Amino acid sequence: MINKNYLKLPGSYLFANIGRKVNEYSQANPDKRIIRLGIGDVSLPLAPAIIKALHEGADEMGNAASFHGYPDYEGYDFLREAIIANDFKARGVEIGMDEVFVNDGAKCDSAALGEIFSTDIKVAVCDPVYPVYVDSNALAGRAGDYQEEKQYWSNLIYMPCVESNGFAPELPAERPDVIYLCFPNNPTGATVTKAQLQEWVDYANREGSVIIYDAAYEAYISEEDVPHSIYECEGAKECAIEMRSFSKNAGFTGMRLGFTIVPKALVRDGVSLNQLWLKHQETTFNGVSYVVQKAGAAVYTPEGKQQTSEQVAYYMNNAKYIREGLIAAGFEASGGVNAPYVWLKTPQGMNSWQFFDYLLENANVVGTPGSGFGPHGEGYFRLTGFGNYENTVEAIKRIQAL
Amino acid sequence: MINKNYLKLPGSYLFANIGRKVNEYSQANPDKRIIRLGIGDVSLPLAPAIIKALHEGADEMGNAASFHGYPDYEGYDFLREAIIANDFKARGVEIGMDEVFVNDGAKCDSAALGEIFSTDIKVAVCDPVYPVYVDSNALAGRAGDYQEEKQYWSNLIYMPCVESNGFAPELPAERPDVIYLCFPNNPTGATVTKAQLQEWVDYANREGSVIIYDAAYEAYISEEDVPHSIYECEGAKECAIEMRSFSKNAGFTGMRLGFTIVPKALVRDGVSLNQLWLKHQETTFNGVSYVVQKAGAAVYTPEGKQQTSEQVAYYMNNAKYIREGLIAAGFEASGGVNAPYVWLKTPQGMNSWQFFDYLLENANVVGTPGSGFGPHGEGYFRLTGFGNYENTVEAIKRIQAL
Repeated sequence: MINKNYLKLPGSYLFANIGRKVNEYSQANPDKRIIRLGIGDVSLPLAPAIIKALHEGADEMGNAASFHGYPDYEGYDFLREAIIANDFKARGVEIGMDEVFVNDGAKCDSAALGEIFSTDIKVAVCDPVYPVYVDSNALAGRAGDYQEEKQYWSNLIYMPCVESNGFAPELPAERPDVIYLCFPNNPTGATVTKAQLQEWVDYANREGSVIIYDAAYEAYISEEDVPHSIYECEGAKECAIEMRSFSKNAGFTGMRLGFTIVPKALVRDGVSLNQLWLKHQETTFNGVSYVVQKAGAAVYTPEGKQQTSEQVAYYMNNAKYIREGLIAAGFEASGGVNAPYVWLKTPQGMNSWQFFDYLLENANVVGTPGSGFGPHGEGYFRLTGFGNYENTVEAIKRIQAL
Repeated sequence: MINKNYLKLPGSYLFANIGRKVNEYSQANPDKRIIRLGIGDVSLPLAPAIIKALHEGADEMGNAASFHGYPDYEGYDFLREAIIANDFKARGVEIGMDEVFVNDGAKCDSAALGEIFSTDIKVAVCDPVYPVYVDSNALAGRAGDYQEEKQYWSNLIYMPCVESNGFAPELPAERPDVIYLCFPNNPTGATVTKAQLQEWVDYANREGSVIIYDAAYEAYISEEDVPHSIYECEGAKECAIEMRSFSKNAGFTGMRLGFTIVPKALVRDGVSLNQLWLKHQETTFNGVSYVVQKAGAAVYTPEGKQQTSEQVAYYMNNAKYIREGLIAAGFEASGGVNAPYVWLKTPQGMNSWQFFDYLLENANVVGTPGSGFGPHGEGYFRLTGFGNYENTVEAIKRIQAL
């Protein structure tokens, strides 16, 4: 009677595993000061404009006249209006109010979006990639069986993102129904240009595939020709769903807020996916906390924009420091230009988890094993710019002294 | 490629439908003052102890030393400890820290818990009942096909809760794998005694079924022999999952906080459902906002308990007023003793939606059509005590004048 797909999933969720390993080490070595550059969690406190909105939201909830009960399924109008104006209209993209679905963090929708598709579809993923796409499809039975020695799921289409293609996937040989793309990429920090992304949009429209585009790191883009939204490409509303997050541009990892765009023009099997997703949200979800949405809207005020862009710059400065420090120490490292992630090749033939242990034990630095993001992540390692600057400098000093 | 089960679901989610109907009416009749006793949303502002905690949480999030990033998947220790001590230990029930899973409102888990079961199980539901159990199982393909004229799903086991059995379900003739029970019941307001619930626990243990027990309204129980938790029954940890909510006991409908208990002793097919649910949460969920959990913990402080119990008493006074006022006006009405819901028989042979329209147009009062909760809800109507007292009195006055 249980869902047997759960038993196929090897081990626990990557970051839960890392957490347990680090806890064990730190309990056994209470004198060591561990620096965590592993999970992509932010370290700066919420910006003052956001805190101010949180306090205002709290006061409103304590007052009968301004109290808010059940939120809208799709998110409050004030937040969706700010999203549309700032994230899309300002880039020349028109998105309708009923195409925006506010959620309690992009991870939930990353996992849940699969539910509007049948269980016998073919799913394509970049490899390596943020594990939630693969794991959630595996739990739903869309990934087939796990092949331990190859670390492959039998029914997925893997699109290797490796040194030879600049960590950008190539169009798959086999037609996928659903394609997960994440740019700027987690974990490699790589991006694609607008022209390259247009090729994917054209491919999806030609083949009838749906692209699920994860743009959680768009605030970190520093180069001109890198698109912030897939809807900057022509025809994307006919083939793409886009996921966004407040976690990384505004430090909301502990607040839980994100949103998903499902265009009304996206039709498959004669059905609007926008209507399917609305049905999904109305049936299985009950909206996001008022105070959190109120805080989210503050991100789009002039003060909020100014303050959060300073935070992004702070993290990007860390990422630059990591990348340059690693290269100076003789590592091969990329990323860190349009993303807070630096992707390095593990040295001396160590595999990813061996390097994880080596770094934890010898430098007391926590990173993320590349193999945790898929088979083509093996031999790589992810460090993030989300720590504080002093710790980041100290971590690189320790790594350079190894 | 789409999930065709979505197309089987008739119309939209019940409360979304009501919202649209009311909006249409109020736009066409801007001069009418509508009183909403339909959706089970609270109207009192959050209690002062909760608002204080929200402000403290906001300040912590604005300070590097006390900032909280990604929350624990299972919820913060401080909240789970308060839940265990107050909701369970105080009633003689021992629940372990790793058996509590904090969520962003009980609706999400009501819908998601089905995912740990295979799609070919047999599901039993009370009829009428909160629509999420049926609708979420339908989307996942566990409900079979919808039979329009009977308003039945072909693969569900319906357990009628009607006048003749005091709105309490009887043990099903056919063995279900999963049984959803909700007491105090939404929508009928009916309850079962501890002895009656023990029969269900014994049945589930005998048959190997799993009970998903929704106790969202336990704070409204006023009678001695009505259990607050299914774990007050012997053997329940071997067969039952329990869902709780902060929405109704503490007015958190706009805050989004609840929790689910999955006991480690609950094993099916040789697998611990606690482990399956942990895997579900780690893979598809990223925890609840720190400020919301901080506010939730304040519910368990002495001030929080005092203030929220006054709110519950206020709503129960409304429910009593509704029930007695309806009976005085010649309606047949039940509920309102251990639950904020009053369940009335529609008069003059009107069906549930006819009575909805009649009440909206002639008394400008919004209620919930019983048929929206399942086929045996037809001919009934739900009113709730969650409005403010003055509006409740006015609504009953209008109904009595019809």
